[in-house]
Amino acid sequence: MTQRASTLGVAIVGCGTVGGQTALLLTREAEAAGSRMGPRLELRHVVDVDYTHARELGLDEALFTAELEQALADESVGAVVELIGGTTVAKAVIEHALRAGKCVVTANKALLAHHGPELYALARRTGTCIAFEASCAGGVPILRALCDGLLANRIDAIYGIVNGTCNYILTAMTRRGQTYADALAVAQADGLAEADPALDVAGTDSAHKLAILAALAFGGRVDFDRVPVTGIDSLDLRDLRNGQELGYVIKLLAIAIRQGEGLLLRVCPAFISQAHPLAWVSGPFNAVSVYGHATGHTMYYGRGAGGRPTASAVVADLAAIALGTAQRQFDELGVWPDRTAPANQLPLSDAESRYYLRVMCDDHPGVLARIATILGRHDISISSVLQHEPMPGREADAVPVVITTHRAMEGNVSAALGEVNALDVVQAETVCIPIVEEYPEDM
Amino acid sequence: MTQRASTLGVAIVGCGTVGGQTALLLTREAEAAGSRMGPRLELRHVVDVDYTHARELGLDEALFTAELEQALADESVGAVVELIGGTTVAKAVIEHALRAGKCVVTANKALLAHHGPELYALARRTGTCIAFEASCAGGVPILRALCDGLLANRIDAIYGIVNGTCNYILTAMTRRGQTYADALAVAQADGLAEADPALDVAGTDSAHKLAILAALAFGGRVDFDRVPVTGIDSLDLRDLRNGQELGYVIKLLAIAIRQGEGLLLRVCPAFISQAHPLAWVSGPFNAVSVYGHATGHTMYYGRGAGGRPTASAVVADLAAIALGTAQRQFDELGVWPDRTAPANQLPLSDAESRYYLRVMCDDHPGVLARIATILGRHDISISSVLQHEPMPGREADAVPVVITTHRAMEGNVSAALGEVNALDVVQAETVCIPIVEEYPEDM
Repeated sequence: MTQRASTLGVAIVGCGTVGGQTALLLTREAEAAGSRMGPRLELRHVVDVDYTHARELGLDEALFTAELEQALADESVGAVVELIGGTTVAKAVIEHALRAGKCVVTANKALLAHHGPELYALARRTGTCIAFEASCAGGVPILRALCDGLLANRIDAIYGIVNGTCNYILTAMTRRGQTYADALAVAQADGLAEADPALDVAGTDSAHKLAILAALAFGGRVDFDRVPVTGIDSLDLRDLRNGQELGYVIKLLAIAIRQGEGLLLRVCPAFISQAHPLAWVSGPFNAVSVYGHATGHTMYYGRGAGGRPTASAVVADLAAIALGTAQRQFDELGVWPDRTAPANQLPLSDAESRYYLRVMCDDHPGVLARIATILGRHDISISSVLQHEPMPGREADAVPVVITTHRAMEGNVSAALGEVNALDVVQAETVCIPIVEEYPEDM
Repeated sequence: MTQRASTLGVAIVGCGTVGGQTALLLTREAEAAGSRMGPRLELRHVVDVDYTHARELGLDEALFTAELEQALADESVGAVVELIGGTTVAKAVIEHALRAGKCVVTANKALLAHHGPELYALARRTGTCIAFEASCAGGVPILRALCDGLLANRIDAIYGIVNGTCNYILTAMTRRGQTYADALAVAQADGLAEADPALDVAGTDSAHKLAILAALAFGGRVDFDRVPVTGIDSLDLRDLRNGQELGYVIKLLAIAIRQGEGLLLRVCPAFISQAHPLAWVSGPFNAVSVYGHATGHTMYYGRGAGGRPTASAVVADLAAIALGTAQRQFDELGVWPDRTAPANQLPLSDAESRYYLRVMCDDHPGVLARIATILGRHDISISSVLQHEPMPGREADAVPVVITTHRAMEGNVSAALGEVNALDVVQAETVCIPIVEEYPEDM
């Protein structure tokens, strides 16, 4: 439904942190944007099972609508904002809304990563559209960059810090020397990590966002279940310190790289040069580096979560629906994964990168030679070795040998580390962290 | 003219660096963006007086069209790209194109800063539109952020590094300790500064971009002639070093701050904390920090000049014209300065900031007290003082006293410095550089 009326009626479903702030931006704060907005957005319904938060915010109780059906039956409603989260009820709500001829705005990355193409196809059949700027990097208009500002580019690579909780924890570990457990506890106390932080720290949330970003940037449908994910929950402070000594900062990166005819997708903690702009992104901030064949490196930075930044993205999508631009883009661009072919997702063994390795081994003569020999046999060339003197009186303990490699295939590295770990002189599983280099600009 | 045809015919006027790369993106490299683009863009005419560069690029000679009128008479042409530069011929070309019913894309910041409202009004009368993403920050889609992604926000402040030449020179001065003259010479040798660098180093180019950005962000018409501008050409390496010692980096900033009911606009070299993201922006890169009332701080980073990044922005605008989204935004949004009231531009004396001062004075007892007394009388509170021991054997020379102030009104600072400079113990005009603090996020 192409909306170009001067007023768009809106129903918000789910009035939590983001829903509440969206409601405020549409009502009490509607004057903030002033006349810049153009078409008016009018909040007509707030649908939830519990209005405690909505009342705390002082929203007009006349907006509270107990039944979704009631909101959908309102012909003045042109757009439904789904802010329930999760992949079950939220999916049903969106399907209902689309079938009722309403455009949908959502911040639900998990749902879109798993069921995006199916929902987009439904929107297409019902002549509506789905807008989801709020699903990635909160208030940062990164989807608009990919689908509009950078449209002339072949996108070659994306490196994103897209989970504020993880970045907050890693910043605390790096700058304050806290262990992962301590940093997580502080993040939880500060309200920056959930009581159950699994979705964030295991990297799953970042992978959801990567799946959405990569599909739009590379114009291919992403199979979320085939995105390899490593979280930050097993990171050891020692490795962060070793990395710093070598000039690197650790970040949880969502990575998408065009490699030949394929697409390499992964989420993992990675070292990045202290000189790279992403290294500066600290605390709860997000940033996404995009390498286009014409623009070279561009980066988008801001608060990736929180009620107000996310609500800002939701309202921008509503404005685009009211203007009709969201529908045009949804109808005409070749980026939406219900209409694109499956991306050629490469196995992780095809990843090519530099690597940081920490081998815990006996302090015996010849150990390094044995490790180097194994690496060499697997076509892995050593770039640097860092081995500190053992602590006096602790000569019997395992000694960390830190090795950085030149570019190598991850499959070769895995095979080599299997052999290294099996050596009798190696006392623990070798730590392996990719080192991300500045992507070469194809200018 | 609302374009929604599946093909948009394009005429490029001016085939220099940007024009040539735009032509390449539309022809030989059209496949790079693949099917993401949606509607097709077809280059129909390249209009110039000299086709040497066009031939070097291997453009199809059948495209070369000697007369603008010929291109405008071609009904298949829906958009004209003006890449001549300057404010005379370029203006006439754009007016011709608009009157012929063609949409216009331009990168011409000088023209838009001076004559934007007049041209937008003409476009409105002829039912066309003007798109100018390429006029600010090259390949960085900053106008789209302001007019689309951040539309729900009251924009409170903008700090932009929008001139790559200046940033390259300042980076060289900061990192390599080069003088301004030496750094400029290197920039010229590297092709990063014009033989006549006046427009860049005097800050005029940055001011053009600021006028465009501020008008869209704050929804008010900007009188370019009332934007105070200071360039980088009189910067002294000593001040950069003193600033570094205090934890600051110098940047040429384009600043727009909402202050009460007014708007404070200025371009000037300013110190910024080494912890601020803009401090990391080095070499020829640009970045714009935008503070929205809902998003807080967001930043947009990338190459602000050069043929390919700028051409990327031009083609994005052409795609938006082909989609019809550019016309919708031009018709409906309340940001275009032909339809907004004049901005309430505050005089520079109303600027409120911290300041860095370097007073060159005799090394006599009581001098600092006299300076401090003057500052105090003008309501300027001192934050720190830095005075090095005089060099042995050079006690008679003037001694630099470096003072940083707390927040003060620039009018008061000017008045105070008038008195300071008139002191018999002060030997040279006092250097005064604003210190930009992190804008407080209104979250």
